[in-house]
This record gives sequence, structure tokens and C-alpha cells, in this order.
Amino acid sequence: MRQAGRSLPEYRASRTGVGMLEACAMPELVTEITLQPVRRYGVDAAVLYSDIVVPLAAAGIDVRIEPGVGPVMGRAVRTAAEVDALPDLDPAAMAPVGEAIRMLVAELGGTPLIGFAGAPFTLASYLIEGGPSRHHERTKALMISDPGLWDALLSRIAGIAATALVAQLSAGVSVVQLFDSWAGALSRADYERFAAPYSARVLAEVAEHSSAPRIHFGVGTAELLGSMAAAGADVMGVDYHLPLDEAQRRITAAVGPRPLQGNLDPAMLLAPWDAVAPRALDMLRAGRAAPGHIANLGHGVLPQTDPDQLARLVDLVHGFDPADAPPGQ
Amino acid sequence: MRQAGRSLPEYRASRTGVGMLEACAMPELVTEITLQPVRRYGVDAAVLYSDIVVPLAAAGIDVRIEPGVGPVMGRAVRTAAEVDALPDLDPAAMAPVGEAIRMLVAELGGTPLIGFAGAPFTLASYLIEGGPSRHHERTKALMISDPGLWDALLSRIAGIAATALVAQLSAGVSVVQLFDSWAGALSRADYERFAAPYSARVLAEVAEHSSAPRIHFGVGTAELLGSMAAAGADVMGVDYHLPLDEAQRRITAAVGPRPLQGNLDPAMLLAPWDAVAPRALDMLRAGRAAPGHIANLGHGVLPQTDPDQLARLVDLVHGFDPADAPPGQ
Repeated sequence: MRQAGRSLPEYRASRTGVGMLEACAMPELVTEITLQPVRRYGVDAAVLYSDIVVPLAAAGIDVRIEPGVGPVMGRAVRTAAEVDALPDLDPAAMAPVGEAIRMLVAELGGTPLIGFAGAPFTLASYLIEGGPSRHHERTKALMISDPGLWDALLSRIAGIAATALVAQLSAGVSVVQLFDSWAGALSRADYERFAAPYSARVLAEVAEHSSAPRIHFGVGTAELLGSMAAAGADVMGVDYHLPLDEAQRRITAAVGPRPLQGNLDPAMLLAPWDAVAPRALDMLRAGRAAPGHIANLGHGVLPQTDPDQLARLVDLVHGFDPADAPPGQ
Repeated sequence: MRQAGRSLPEYRASRTGVGMLEACAMPELVTEITLQPVRRYGVDAAVLYSDIVVPLAAAGIDVRIEPGVGPVMGRAVRTAAEVDALPDLDPAAMAPVGEAIRMLVAELGGTPLIGFAGAPFTLASYLIEGGPSRHHERTKALMISDPGLWDALLSRIAGIAATALVAQLSAGVSVVQLFDSWAGALSRADYERFAAPYSARVLAEVAEHSSAPRIHFGVGTAELLGSMAAAGADVMGVDYHLPLDEAQRRITAAVGPRPLQGNLDPAMLLAPWDAVAPRALDMLRAGRAAPGHIANLGHGVLPQTDPDQLARLVDLVHGFDPADAPPGQ
């Protein structure tokens, strides 16, 4: 469960006085925070404590994470000169992350560790808008009006994201996820033309270096699942807008079936457990349409979530026997 | 084009020193602001200057609109006692809006005037969360955990929205739009169970009082178009995530074909006109799948839009001859 730490008192204690991106570059702290939800919940995998913009920061691009806002750039990137001036990511700059990964792999034993990075379109939006954006208007305007500049920028970012994921794999993560937070802002045609080719480049470069499974995930992407799977995915992450069996139908139509990860709506966890449990069971039953289903939330854990709800959810998932009830019951 | 005024200097001048909801209750000012885009662009219809929460404010519920934030409630509504204490909307409280509508109808001559109100689910989210919400977590938690309270609250809001639309029709608007900003936060199953019945009640009550066309619109609703059309719609509004021909296929499968309104992505208007024009033409061509297509944006005008771009768009639409080019060309 992504961002499971946000709701934990032990996480908040660990982060006191330490900025988000600073924390991501402190190996002992990354190790401790990554292990917290594993210890508390006994989940079947750990998610590396990091952020989708860590590869940009590691490349030396001026980005900070403002609490309650998100990633904010020191300066926006909108011109050919600004794109040319973007640094590449030196794999050596990923050393603190690599050190954390090595410590984690030693601690985790047989529990897999999932690494991740932001997808080129999402990172491009942060760079072009200068921070989080509701409408991505400068991004879309640049995208449709200057294809050459768009290609140069997205190619540069794809290189950074690929280098970051390969570095994580070299250090020992056993799964990587490409995270396209904002892909859902695009129509399918625009996604296929302006975003998918660069995500495909990242995922192909990862596959050249490792046979580790690649998860591909975005939010609000019900219309894009087939196109995202076609860009590359050993596992497709699905958000909460679509039941898993319907998601699987769309993915199968495009590329054949894939194991799915998801997709309980994290907002629902604020309801009493009696109301949440039937929805978790619905997810598990729909997930049988996707052999290899990785039970998960359909988006990150909300900070105000009661940790006991997450514990109940993990117990319910662990106690579920797919053979018990027929699909849809 | 909704919120066309936001980008106009004459609008900003009219609003100087006047709060949004105060402005919506000043008939001369509503008339002036409503007419501004009609004068400037020569569009084929006027959109009443109002806000989706005006019916709540008119009912006496404590709501204000904070610039850059949106509707904020004086207090949230989450308990049975708080729902019971909600006032109904006395049609007499819509008098200033009615007066503005009568003045506008006289000024507009043959140009239709479109009225609107927020849909029950969207208004419920503002009431429950206490303001705009990214994840609607309290709303969803209440929805799945207390169906009786949910029904009581949504029924109350449906009554307020219906009264507001009927008052607008009685005063002379020729079209009404039910505006479900947040419906896209729900899966189709949840939309059909928790939102559609109350929107259907509003739209049915409107139809009892008038044969005026009813437009039904939401954002991020590609998965919901058929369900929204089934809840009631003489015209379906479509946002920019889906081409109009694909939207029409989904609506037709559910209820038969409908005229569509939409759906150029307003963010694209920030690009140079040479890049915008082909997209506007794509929309017009796809719109032939929906006889009676009302060319429009797929969401509100962004405040930073160059008014000259909107003028060019209106001219392009007015100059388009559907017989000129075959679909898809």
C-alpha cells in the first residue's frame, strides 16, 4: 500500500524536522520508514520510501516538496534553452538510495522490495508548470504547439527515469513501478501520442537490464489501461474507478491478460470497518479475473486513515481463499 | 462557454469589491456579467451568471465562495440532527435571480438563456466535507456506512436543486443544466446507487414543470455517461477526455442517441491558435455523430485564457459547415 506510512505515528516521529527529499537521501531513515508498515501490518511486500521526483532531485534539478502542496520547481522548464540545460542523471547520484536498498534487502529477507519512479509525462508536467497543476494547461499547450521541444524534454526525462529505475534494480529492488500520476488528464489519443512513447522507452530500458516485474500505474486512467499496458507492463496497477474484472477486459483486448494490482478506494477506509469489509471482498472476488492479483488500494493511503483499518484490511486479504466463493458472489 | 467571463477584463472590473455570491444576488450585475461574453463573442446562447451553490445560499445555508478555493461551508453537515436542521428552499428566496433572468430575457431577444444548479452528489460533498475536497473521503465514508442518513441528506438537497431550477424556468430561462462536478470521483456502480437516483429526481421534477431541454454534465465521467443519460438528459454534456463519437456510442448503448454539448479541452486554448484550430475542427467533425451537437468547451474557461482565442474559436464554429468534410477527415 503506497504511502502507508503517512498515517502512522511512528512515521511522523521519524520525519520530525526532516524535509521529504532530504529524508529520501538518508539511507538509515529510508530503511526505517520503509520497514514501518511491514512491521506493523505484515504486508507481503515493502514499498521503498521515496518520491516520484527523487530522480529529478538526484539529477541536480532544483525541486523541493512543500508539505500540503507537492513538488515545486525552483524554476519552470519551458524553452529549448531550459531543456538543453537539464542535467542527465549520473547513476552515482543514486548512491544513497542504493545504500538504503541494500540495507533493506538484508533486513527484509524473503519479502520483496518495490522501487518506483515518476513517468515522463507526469514529471514533465511538474517541470513545465513549475509545481502541481489542476489543469496542466502550460503542459498541454506546449505539447500540442511545439512537438520538437516536447520530444526533447520528454526524451531527457525518460532517460532520467530509466537511469533511476535501473539503479534501484542494480541495488536490489525486486519489482519496479512506473508511476504516471497525471496521465488521466489526457485523452487516449493524446496519451498514445505524447506520453506512451516515453513511458515505453523507460520500461524497455528497464527490461534490458533486468527481468524484474514492471508495474505500470496511473490515476483516472480507466480509458487508458490498454494503451498503458501496450507501452509496457508485466503488472497493471488499477485505480478505484473501475472494477478489476472490467479493467482486465480492457487490458486483455489490448495486449492479453495481465496480473493486476489494486484497487480499493482509499477514501472508503474512513468508514467503519463493517462498511469497508464488503467492498474489500468485492475487490478480491473481482480480482480473480486477473490471476496473480496483488490486493492493494487503488491510490495512496490518506494521511488521516486509522492504522487499525489498514491492519484489518491486511488480515482480511490474508484470510481470503479465492476458492471459497464463486466470482461475483 | 461556461465561466467565459473569468478571462474578461470587463468581468473583473464588474466584480471589483463584490463577493461572488453577493454578485449572484444583484440582478443588474448578473445581467451585465451574463451579457458580457454574448456581446464580445456573439455566442449562440447566454449562460446565467451564477454558481452551483447559489441554491444552497438562497435556502439560507451558510456558504461563501473563497477566491482561489471554492465554496466553503460555515459548518459541515454530517449528523442526522444537522441534516434535519437544513432549511428547504423557499422559491421566494430566488427572487433576485428571477429578476435578473427577466431582465436578461428582455435584453437577449432570441438568444437562449441557460440556467443551472449543482447536482445533489456534488452539493452533498461540499456540505459533508465543509469545502472543496480532493478525495471526498468523508462523503464516501458516510455514503457507504449510513444509507439512511445519506438518503435523507441527498433527498433534501435534491429538493433544493429542483426548486432552484424550476424557479429559473418560471422566470424565463430556456434551458437548464444539472452540473455534477464531482460525479467522476465515483465508480459507475456507486454513481448509480448513491448519486443517480437523486439527480433523476431533480431532472424529473424539472420535466414536470417545463418542456425546456435539460442538459446533464459532469467532469471525468467517461465511465458514467450512459448512467447519467439514464438519470435524465435531453442533452448530454461531455468533458474533454473522450471524443464525441465515442461518447455518443456509450450514451446510445444506454438510452439511445442524444444531442451532445462539448468538448474542446479548455487547457488547449493556451496554445497558439495554429495548434488549437485543428483540435476544434476534430471536435466539430466528431460532433456529427450527435445531431444537434452544441459546440463548446469540455470544461469551464480557464481565467488566464486570452479572450482573442475564444473569439477565434467562436468564429471557427460559426464558419464550420458540417456538410463540407466527411466525418473523421
